[in-house]
Amino acid sequence: MIRKGKYATAEEMAAAQREISVAEFFAKNRHLLGFDNPAKAVLTTVREAVDNSLDACEEAGILPEIHVEIRNVAARKEGQQLLLEGANGNKKQRGFGGADRLIVSVQDNGPGIVKEQIPKIFGKLLYGSKFHRLRMSRGQQGIGISAAALYSQLTTGQQATITSRTGGRAKPHRFRVGIDLAKNAPEARDAEIGEKEEVAQGTKVVLEIEGRYQKHGKSVDEYLKETAVANPHSKIVFKDPDGNETVHERASKELPPPAKEIKPHPYGVELGVLINMMRDTGSRTVKGFLQTDFSRVSPDKAAQILKHAGISEGYHPKTIARDQADRLYEGIQQTRLMAPPTDCLAPIGEAQLVAGLKKEFDAEFYTSTTRPPDVYRGNPFQIEAALAFGGKLPAEEPAQVLRFANRVPLLYQAGACAISKAVVGTSWRNYNLQQPKGSPPIGPLVLVVHMASVWVPFTSEAKEAIASYDEILKEIKLALQECGRRVGTHVNKSRRAADEARKRGYIDMYLPHIGIALQQILKLSDAERNKTCTDLKAILEKTRKAD
Amino acid sequence: MIRKGKYATAEEMAAAQREISVAEFFAKNRHLLGFDNPAKAVLTTVREAVDNSLDACEEAGILPEIHVEIRNVAARKEGQQLLLEGANGNKKQRGFGGADRLIVSVQDNGPGIVKEQIPKIFGKLLYGSKFHRLRMSRGQQGIGISAAALYSQLTTGQQATITSRTGGRAKPHRFRVGIDLAKNAPEARDAEIGEKEEVAQGTKVVLEIEGRYQKHGKSVDEYLKETAVANPHSKIVFKDPDGNETVHERASKELPPPAKEIKPHPYGVELGVLINMMRDTGSRTVKGFLQTDFSRVSPDKAAQILKHAGISEGYHPKTIARDQADRLYEGIQQTRLMAPPTDCLAPIGEAQLVAGLKKEFDAEFYTSTTRPPDVYRGNPFQIEAALAFGGKLPAEEPAQVLRFANRVPLLYQAGACAISKAVVGTSWRNYNLQQPKGSPPIGPLVLVVHMASVWVPFTSEAKEAIASYDEILKEIKLALQECGRRVGTHVNKSRRAADEARKRGYIDMYLPHIGIALQQILKLSDAERNKTCTDLKAILEKTRKAD
Repeated sequence: MIRKGKYATAEEMAAAQREISVAEFFAKNRHLLGFDNPAKAVLTTVREAVDNSLDACEEAGILPEIHVEIRNVAARKEGQQLLLEGANGNKKQRGFGGADRLIVSVQDNGPGIVKEQIPKIFGKLLYGSKFHRLRMSRGQQGIGISAAALYSQLTTGQQATITSRTGGRAKPHRFRVGIDLAKNAPEARDAEIGEKEEVAQGTKVVLEIEGRYQKHGKSVDEYLKETAVANPHSKIVFKDPDGNETVHERASKELPPPAKEIKPHPYGVELGVLINMMRDTGSRTVKGFLQTDFSRVSPDKAAQILKHAGISEGYHPKTIARDQADRLYEGIQQTRLMAPPTDCLAPIGEAQLVAGLKKEFDAEFYTSTTRPPDVYRGNPFQIEAALAFGGKLPAEEPAQVLRFANRVPLLYQAGACAISKAVVGTSWRNYNLQQPKGSPPIGPLVLVVHMASVWVPFTSEAKEAIASYDEILKEIKLALQECGRRVGTHVNKSRRAADEARKRGYIDMYLPHIGIALQQILKLSDAERNKTCTDLKAILEKTRKAD
Repeated sequence: MIRKGKYATAEEMAAAQREISVAEFFAKNRHLLGFDNPAKAVLTTVREAVDNSLDACEEAGILPEIHVEIRNVAARKEGQQLLLEGANGNKKQRGFGGADRLIVSVQDNGPGIVKEQIPKIFGKLLYGSKFHRLRMSRGQQGIGISAAALYSQLTTGQQATITSRTGGRAKPHRFRVGIDLAKNAPEARDAEIGEKEEVAQGTKVVLEIEGRYQKHGKSVDEYLKETAVANPHSKIVFKDPDGNETVHERASKELPPPAKEIKPHPYGVELGVLINMMRDTGSRTVKGFLQTDFSRVSPDKAAQILKHAGISEGYHPKTIARDQADRLYEGIQQTRLMAPPTDCLAPIGEAQLVAGLKKEFDAEFYTSTTRPPDVYRGNPFQIEAALAFGGKLPAEEPAQVLRFANRVPLLYQAGACAISKAVVGTSWRNYNLQQPKGSPPIGPLVLVVHMASVWVPFTSEAKEAIASYDEILKEIKLALQECGRRVGTHVNKSRRAADEARKRGYIDMYLPHIGIALQQILKLSDAERNKTCTDLKAILEKTRKAD
């Protein structure tokens, strides 16, 4: 029963089919990239630029010094209301969320960017150096900074300004970069650098955006503070729109050990990807392919895999048929292989974590743990946890949870994050802490969890929460339990000490009265009474300790 | 202080920069598309195919009849463990999550797909007819079904099989379609249709995937059940791997009114998009551009906008400079415009919502409300809510919340969804229901919320949760409050009736005893005693009612 007229045919539907550029897609979905509202947009813009700067400095072996500045260039549109007329004549006012026009500038002392790369890095989504390699870094998607440039262009019509110099002897360059939405391609032009302008080595990004700077809560200030905690080797200077300057001094001159790039581990490769790899490999035998294109496959292991699969070693990878690929995949699963190398990871370290916590939180007890590396979908990862307890922390509130991924603080989407799930899923009552059902523990407690990985599985492109893979959840829980046991012992000790003191107080309070009563009943002298009291006290305290 | 050796220079970093194909991106991030784990992968695959079928049928004016089948083709890999050797020699076993190899097949009676479009629709991400238009539909991104095909290829190495026929007289076609990851382009080949094989009008998609079928919880069964609730005009037949067949019969022969395509509303267009639109328009004056390319801009309103902006009406849109565009944008905000047309939306309707609830839940009280349409970022949307209370619903558990977006049930990511936030943020105690702080209400309660929009702002490409725009949150709360007030009145009445019955019970119980006591004290006859009791009872009941 097909109706005609207002309905469409297959041919009409076909005519409407079109390609969608990834820039158009994210322009319409900018909340996926962390640009949902004016306050968050400011944080996301700063974060993408700072993360890139830290990555570049570390990769080049430079101790990072980063200057962030936010300036207000247009009066707040707070009072502005969009005016809608309802179809039935009644009028509605729609608030506009109060956005300022801000200029965000981030400057680093990094290695700089070569001239030819600047347009693409800032003017093309899905372009970068970190996606195709397996190595821990803050950026991984090739989306972040170009998304900030896209947001800037959408909200203020302005292009990004990038100034970069690769060294004292190199010529500095300045570009104005926009994005052609329909093509996802950069629109760039040279911009002038004044003759007297001094340009130091490094990169400076300036973006004009619509946003709202806020000092508290999920703010740029909080992000930079937590970044300083997780990156004690960095110096970060921040100037806010009111001209206040905050300096996070370097707490350590040691760069984190450089993370190494690894090849994929056979266990993490899916059948479809394995088939692709065999098509693209330079190896001329399937045995050579296994040894060369993967980590942890020795000639011996490659032979074992092929034996399990029933494929001869000299086979050319490009001639492997689909059912042979299937057997090869099964052969891999049946072969015992070493866990992937973990020098691709650079955890923060237990001492640094505690030092960071001590700097920021005034507590009475601190502890931390770094778990041994583990693997999810073939990707090495490592969980660290730390904890501060007691002291001046608020006693009656849910624990504060600081979440980090590859040293980047995560401020939004806590509810969707594996870290939050692990915190709620841990039985804190076992560690002498209160915990309402389905909630985090309550008490004077700050928890820190850091996931380091060659590929953090974020729940969205905005990189705000970690997806709940079983292996990851399990490791986070183990780390939390380790810290939990230690704080449990501490809580227990403090509680016993308090009980002890209270009981001792009772003895001290009542013993004299008991002494007087005994003196009257037994007609004791004052000396006898005093001795009896002393003896009684000794006996009572001994009994109590034996409990 | 630059260190040499193991560190990289700007030139070395530049050499590593590469373009990332969107297919590669999502292959690595497949959890963003709803393929995080084997159970969810099955649901997502079915959902993408069914949503497309429903959209196509409705667009063509056909009452949908959809057949879904899941078959198990390979033994469960439950016992399989990946074997890792730790660097220190101790061994670890890594579970593999127990995935089956399943064949998912979805067949509809829709308009079919023309031959040339089949490869791109199934073999290219970000391709489709729904992204660029403003009209309510289930699909909107051009990602869904090709993502399912990508997942199939990754996990089983198999291409998707699509059979389609656009009508009884048209020739049927069958293709095997895969995706070239590095290019995000289809790899398709014709497949044979047997001579005796009968192919009806419509489309059939068959995908071989790794997954795990589960009967309960967030299952295909639950998704199809809720789909039937929100789409009473559809017939859906499901055959599970054990051969059990479930038929959701059509409850109504009325197709939802066809949603119309609208042009963007000026208030929803950002400055950057406005600049782009002026560059691309066919209009030769800026006044014509405003009237033609937007909804709700009459010649009079266009003149007002341009007057506010200080731009003359005959200006050619392509010659508008950036600062003029800025003024034009401000001019739009200063002009009072009619709200966008809402015939682009097709809400479920209050009666249908209650009918759906009654079919599935045995309660004593039902209510529903459809809010008037509203706008976020220029996109029209409309919220509906419904509620079932009492009866056989569990009395001591948190309310069950069913979430829908454009008639599609949302089963995952409840915590990240604006609907959940609105449920928690509503004060149910005002409506005589229990509610722990920060939690949904507790009681025999089922809540349904549906958002209909030309563009649902999902929190991820997997389309599992609605982003929390203020306007959307507010409308959901208003709808919940309306239902809440009604159930509050009902709860109050039931409670009073219960109190009433209890008090009446007391009177009936004690009055005879009081009668006997009075008889003894006042020396009454039996008749006098009985009359006194009757009078007393009448007086007491009158008093109680006056309370």
